[in-house]
Amino acid sequence: MLKANDPSLRSWIPVSPDSDFPIQNLPFGIFKTAHRSPRVGVAIGEFVLDLVAVAEFGYFDALNINKKVFGSDALNDFIALGKPAWRAVRERISDLLNEKNMALQSQKEARKQCLLLQSDVQMLLPVRIGDYTDFYSSIDHATNMGKMFRDPANALLPNWKHIPVGYHGRASSIVVSGTPLHRPKGQLKPADAEVPTFGATKLLDFELEVAFIIGKPTKLGDSISTAEAENHIFGLTLFNDWSARDIQSWEYVPLGPFLSKNFGSSTSPWVVTLDALEPFRVKGYTQDPKVLPYLEYSGDRNIDINLEVSILPAVSSSGVENGQETVVCHSNYKYMYWTMEQQLAHHTVNGCNVNIGDMMASGTISGPEEGSVSVSGNVRGKFCRRSKLIYQPAVTAFPRATGFSSFSSPNFLMTHSCTGISSGLSGIQLYGFPFSASCASSLRACVKPDPFRKPSFSSNWNTFRIMRSRSCAVSPRRTFRSICFCRE
Amino acid sequence: MLKANDPSLRSWIPVSPDSDFPIQNLPFGIFKTAHRSPRVGVAIGEFVLDLVAVAEFGYFDALNINKKVFGSDALNDFIALGKPAWRAVRERISDLLNEKNMALQSQKEARKQCLLLQSDVQMLLPVRIGDYTDFYSSIDHATNMGKMFRDPANALLPNWKHIPVGYHGRASSIVVSGTPLHRPKGQLKPADAEVPTFGATKLLDFELEVAFIIGKPTKLGDSISTAEAENHIFGLTLFNDWSARDIQSWEYVPLGPFLSKNFGSSTSPWVVTLDALEPFRVKGYTQDPKVLPYLEYSGDRNIDINLEVSILPAVSSSGVENGQETVVCHSNYKYMYWTMEQQLAHHTVNGCNVNIGDMMASGTISGPEEGSVSVSGNVRGKFCRRSKLIYQPAVTAFPRATGFSSFSSPNFLMTHSCTGISSGLSGIQLYGFPFSASCASSLRACVKPDPFRKPSFSSNWNTFRIMRSRSCAVSPRRTFRSICFCRE
Repeated sequence: MLKANDPSLRSWIPVSPDSDFPIQNLPFGIFKTAHRSPRVGVAIGEFVLDLVAVAEFGYFDALNINKKVFGSDALNDFIALGKPAWRAVRERISDLLNEKNMALQSQKEARKQCLLLQSDVQMLLPVRIGDYTDFYSSIDHATNMGKMFRDPANALLPNWKHIPVGYHGRASSIVVSGTPLHRPKGQLKPADAEVPTFGATKLLDFELEVAFIIGKPTKLGDSISTAEAENHIFGLTLFNDWSARDIQSWEYVPLGPFLSKNFGSSTSPWVVTLDALEPFRVKGYTQDPKVLPYLEYSGDRNIDINLEVSILPAVSSSGVENGQETVVCHSNYKYMYWTMEQQLAHHTVNGCNVNIGDMMASGTISGPEEGSVSVSGNVRGKFCRRSKLIYQPAVTAFPRATGFSSFSSPNFLMTHSCTGISSGLSGIQLYGFPFSASCASSLRACVKPDPFRKPSFSSNWNTFRIMRSRSCAVSPRRTFRSICFCRE
Repeated sequence: MLKANDPSLRSWIPVSPDSDFPIQNLPFGIFKTAHRSPRVGVAIGEFVLDLVAVAEFGYFDALNINKKVFGSDALNDFIALGKPAWRAVRERISDLLNEKNMALQSQKEARKQCLLLQSDVQMLLPVRIGDYTDFYSSIDHATNMGKMFRDPANALLPNWKHIPVGYHGRASSIVVSGTPLHRPKGQLKPADAEVPTFGATKLLDFELEVAFIIGKPTKLGDSISTAEAENHIFGLTLFNDWSARDIQSWEYVPLGPFLSKNFGSSTSPWVVTLDALEPFRVKGYTQDPKVLPYLEYSGDRNIDINLEVSILPAVSSSGVENGQETVVCHSNYKYMYWTMEQQLAHHTVNGCNVNIGDMMASGTISGPEEGSVSVSGNVRGKFCRRSKLIYQPAVTAFPRATGFSSFSSPNFLMTHSCTGISSGLSGIQLYGFPFSASCASSLRACVKPDPFRKPSFSSNWNTFRIMRSRSCAVSPRRTFRSICFCRE
């Protein structure tokens, strides 16, 4: 076991038992404040450790690394130092924060300069992303889709168990969690319409995914084996793959999703190193039929990370702003059929080169049991029913005004950009989408715009904001949570 | 008319009448030599003008631009100066090279420092590419495919005349013409096989495309109108979309091409500015049905650029190295149904942001007449016949050795990575591919590996080289040629 992963370690910084950031995690990110330029930070409890400050106080002097990398607006330069450096820096930070180590603990001025409250800093996109790839590697997700939209007896497409299916996405529009996204416009063509019309999406959702970040580049023509793959991965983030399903259904034949996805994707600001996740490796699915030799691997290569989606509505059912956060579903990263190592081996087997900062997302992660897509509180239901409300709560909070009508009207569904399941919280709906290529069974969430905040609310609003993504980091000790919502 | 576009202009530098680089063109690129670091150059006749040297001699002093941009290893910094600067620099270079202007012409030392033979420099990738998008905008290509593989009466997919269909590709593996590519390996599954096997592609080709380079960025959430689009485009390159069709046919459902494309794409080193192409604007296809308002445009927005593919075999039919170059097909960029402006307006209508250096390729460009895909010399035939040789020349140059057999054997087709039409030159074959998503009717070319160069030639070779891409630039005065070949 890596020394920094020892579960008995305790920090002199108070860390709540349910914090995502115990001393065993120590994820890396980029932050800035009004007085500090963008730089590398590490999360510990409710604090962020400023690595520029740590270096300036000489705490990295023994490491023999170029300290300038910490003053960058992206982790790429730090990552380029290589895995031994990532590991050495994490070990050193673990030492410095260890309750038994007085080096930083006893120095008041250094402490003050090196530690800031996370609530006082602004987190930025952690890496400069060269290329972004999205996989489709959850067998339960793919099977659910196949059962619903094709043949229950042959739910998976013929290539699915042979290939970690993936496709290229847009890198330029990946933003850090909390960045406002604009409600995308595009061509919409309901199945019964003769021709498409133009307008804002009426079916916005996201797929909760986990992404890995390339830590070691390859040259064009080189391939990465499954055994070598982990040395090419720096760490993991949470990834929300926002999707406009009505745009997608019309555009995606024959070359795949395009405008329905590239208006924006959100990543967590904190990148959890693969090192920190090592204790959570578990056995994956038995792969049958046997995969081709270049995809074979040994050992436990899945990772046990709890995933959940919570919804924080703009208004509560009684019309009060800032409704109560509600967990609406659970899943786990261990349910991936194809491991990261297999995805990377496949991606490069043809000689495709990868660069530091490239992001590769998992695809929607569903679990094997219906319960793994559970809706808590007063809401229960299955997802992925075709344009159908499964649960219809009271919607007393919605005024019957322009752009709003009752739940029973199709117009309502369209107006509020969501269809499917409502969580029972006013205006919050989760839904499944009626086509197979990208439908998710689990992790779709969208909050309706808040009619109380804009008296002249009309159908022309086009800005969603992801207002909050609390705990958007992989936590090796507990649940990996995604709390995202969007509103006008 | 822009002053630099005046067809009566003549340069004091000798320019052959059939040169791709008359004074009216002046494309930008990046080059280096053994003694000069990467920098911006402009092509004129057989020379390249070194803009770092031009700036050092003070010839740009009146322009009030940051001259450091010329010393970069990519055009991005120069492009970031903005369209007025591109135009001013091109006008200034046009002046300096004008036969009536003595400023540079009369200065022997400056001439010597500023002008190098193109044959003495190494051209590099012209831009740092953030994101790469490939469109599918040739109606003749899409129609040919639909007729062959679907319904001749309804050849186009329902969305094709409403949407400039496109998808995201891999930016990291775009290389400058002349860069060796590795023959990709991957999963291959013939239709009659039970399970896939692993191996090197047996169906490699390329689609000849034209790409445009983004010259002005947008922010996430912004859209570009068709009227504004030309101000966001710096210029055009020739683009070869290499494709491994046997990998593609197995992997591409449901999310599109992935490993079959991302092992490499080639771009020309020279970027021809949109300014230089202005005199060649022509009327495009009448778009019926009427497009949605955001795709409407006025004026002549297609561009009349002749396109041709030539093949230069590794060996001639008599077994001599460096066989004779043969033009195997013709097309024209004016045959695009969707214009660049429409492509860009569509790409950003959902708020997707674009960055300087992004490349957007046209998709295969086919023409309306069968003759627009003509095979010159002693070879004639249609393309896109399913895995079928249409023309079978003598293949006396091929020894019957390991990895080689006669044309009539399926093994031959596989061994030589190409199927379809042979050009009549030994070992050269053009072919059409048997599936609809990406099949091209025109521009596929591949040269077999040269058995004479490697006595122990076996089926394990995996390096193709694009040995030469002569004249790989858009030329506003004459033919836009792609001469590419690959061999071991």
